[in-house]
Amino acid sequence: MDTTIKKICAGDIRTASRLIRDIEDKLPDAKAKIKKLYAHTGKSFIIGITGAPGAGKSTLTDALISEFRKLNKTVGVLAVDPTSPFTGGAILGDRIRMQRHAEDAGVFVRSLATRGALGGLSQAAGNSIHVMEAMGKDIIIVETVGIGQQEIDIINHAHTVLVVLVPGMGDEIQTMKAGLMEIADVFVINKADRAGARQLQTELSSMLNLSPKTADGWKPPIVMVGNAFDPATFDENTAELAKKIEEHHLYLQQSGMLTERMHRKAMTEIKDALSACLMEPVMHSLVTDGDLEKIAEKIRNRKSDPYTAAEEITEKFFRKQAGK
Amino acid sequence: MDTTIKKICAGDIRTASRLIRDIEDKLPDAKAKIKKLYAHTGKSFIIGITGAPGAGKSTLTDALISEFRKLNKTVGVLAVDPTSPFTGGAILGDRIRMQRHAEDAGVFVRSLATRGALGGLSQAAGNSIHVMEAMGKDIIIVETVGIGQQEIDIINHAHTVLVVLVPGMGDEIQTMKAGLMEIADVFVINKADRAGARQLQTELSSMLNLSPKTADGWKPPIVMVGNAFDPATFDENTAELAKKIEEHHLYLQQSGMLTERMHRKAMTEIKDALSACLMEPVMHSLVTDGDLEKIAEKIRNRKSDPYTAAEEITEKFFRKQAGK
Repeated sequence: MDTTIKKICAGDIRTASRLIRDIEDKLPDAKAKIKKLYAHTGKSFIIGITGAPGAGKSTLTDALISEFRKLNKTVGVLAVDPTSPFTGGAILGDRIRMQRHAEDAGVFVRSLATRGALGGLSQAAGNSIHVMEAMGKDIIIVETVGIGQQEIDIINHAHTVLVVLVPGMGDEIQTMKAGLMEIADVFVINKADRAGARQLQTELSSMLNLSPKTADGWKPPIVMVGNAFDPATFDENTAELAKKIEEHHLYLQQSGMLTERMHRKAMTEIKDALSACLMEPVMHSLVTDGDLEKIAEKIRNRKSDPYTAAEEITEKFFRKQAGK
Repeated sequence: MDTTIKKICAGDIRTASRLIRDIEDKLPDAKAKIKKLYAHTGKSFIIGITGAPGAGKSTLTDALISEFRKLNKTVGVLAVDPTSPFTGGAILGDRIRMQRHAEDAGVFVRSLATRGALGGLSQAAGNSIHVMEAMGKDIIIVETVGIGQQEIDIINHAHTVLVVLVPGMGDEIQTMKAGLMEIADVFVINKADRAGARQLQTELSSMLNLSPKTADGWKPPIVMVGNAFDPATFDENTAELAKKIEEHHLYLQQSGMLTERMHRKAMTEIKDALSACLMEPVMHSLVTDGDLEKIAEKIRNRKSDPYTAAEEITEKFFRKQAGK
C-alpha cells in the first residue's frame, strides 16, 4: 500500500492534514491519492449542520463532539465556509471554540474556505470527508453557513442533516419554505430561552405537518436547545439532540434510505468526476491548437454564439477521436 | 427573423420577461432562443453591484437608475439572489424599492433566484443579461449579495464592478483582503454619515496603495455616499458615483481593457456551454444503457472510485464515437 494511504488509514494527523490541504489547493496529485484512498471510505456516519450566521452552529458542534466522545466514538469535523469575506471570520471562531478538544486524539477538526475564485468547494468537501473516513472516524460533522446552491451541494455529503434556527430572525419561516424543508432531517431551535422560541416551534411544527417529506416515514423532530451559559439545561438538551440524530441514523439503516442516500452521493461523485474528465482533453486540444482564442474572438465579435461554438467543438473533437 | 427575437429586439417587455423566466426554469427552448439572440447582444455597458446584506445596494441601484435616466440612457436591472432562504426577502424588497421606476418604459427590472437546488445561476444571469442587451438597454445593472464563488461568477458578467461597504461591520477590511480587491473597480462607502466612515476610508485607501491592481493604470476610487434621507447630499453623492462609473467605462475603452474583459467573458461562456454539450450525450448514453446505475452501485460498494469510473466511461464513450 502507498505510504500516504497507509499513514492516513492509521489515523496519522499530519499526513491527513497535508492531503486535505492538497485537495483544497487542487494539486493534481491529490486526485491520485483519493483514488487509492477510496476503498477505505464509506463507513463513517456523516452529520451535516447548517443555519444562518450566528445561529450557534459551532457551539452545537462542540457540544455534539462531547456527547459522541462520551460514547467513545471518534469524531472528525469539517467546517466549510463558502460565504463571502463580508461574513468571514467564522472559521477562525470555530477553531478557537473547539480548542478544548485540541488535546483529544479522538477528535480531528479541519476547515475549508473558498480562497478567492477557485470553485469546486463541494467536491473538495467530499474528498476531505473521504480522508476523515479513511482515518476511521466513526462520526464526521460537516458544518456550513446558509443554504445557497453551493451549501446544498456541500450538505448533501451528509447522511443526516441538522438545520439550526434561532428565534427572532424575522420572517425566517416564510423564506425557509423555499428550500429548507427538503433537506432538514432534524430541526434545532437554538437559544430557545429567547422570546419567540415557542412561537417558532409552533409555526415550524404546523409546517412540518403539511410537508410531503413526512410521507417517507420520518417526521423531522424539533429539538429545543437552551442557552449555553446554563450548562445543566444545555447539556441535557444536546444529549437529547444526539439521541434524535442516532434515531435518524437507525431509521436510515432500517428503511434502506441510507443505501439510497449513498447511491445518490455516488451518482453526484461520478458526474463531478466525469465533467472534469471530459473537459480536460477537449480544453487541452483547444488550447494547444490555438482554437480557443480564435473561437473566443468570434464570439466576442458576435460572429458566433457560445452554444453553436460548443456544438462545433464537440463534433470536431469526436471526429478527431474517431480518426485515431 | 424569429418572432420572439424580433419582439425582444423591439424592446417588448412581455416577450423579454417570458424568455428570462424560461431561462430561469431551464426550458430547452430557451437555449435555442439565446443562440438566435446572441448576434444582437454585446453593445450594453454592464455594471455589477455587490456588497453585504443591508449595505444599501438596492437604494444605490435605484439612485443610479435616476442618474442614468437624466442622461437619457435606458436601463436594465437584474437582481440576482444566490443566498440562502435565511437571508431571503431581499428580492421582494428590491422590487418594492424600485417601484417608482415601474411606469418608466426606459427601465426594465427583473430578478433571478436559486429556487432550491437548480444551480447554474451564473449562466442564467449571463443569458438574462443577453436578453436585456438585445432589448437595446444602454446600461445594465447586475446586483448580487456577497462574494462567494457563485457571486464572483455572476459579477464577472459586468464590465465595471462596484463594491459597497458600510461602516461598522466589524473586521470587514481584514476579511476583505481575501477576494474583494481583485474584483472592485469602484468602492462605495455607503451610509457615510455613520461613525467609522472616515476610518474605513483611510484603511481602504492604504490597502489600495499596496494593491497590485493599481499597476493596471486604474486605481479604484472610493466614493462616499451619505444617508438617503438627506436628499440633497445623497443626490450629489450618487451623481459623483455615476461620474466615477463613467470614468471607469472610458478607461476600459481607451486602455483596451474592455476588449480584454469581453474576451474573458466569451471564454467563460464557451466553457460553460462546452461542459453541458459534452456531458449531455455521455450522460444520455449512460442512462439508456443502464450503465449509470451499475457504476454508482460499484462506487457505493467501494469496488471502484469516481475518478477511475469517469476515466472508464470517457474511454468507452470515445471508442463508441470512433466506431460510428
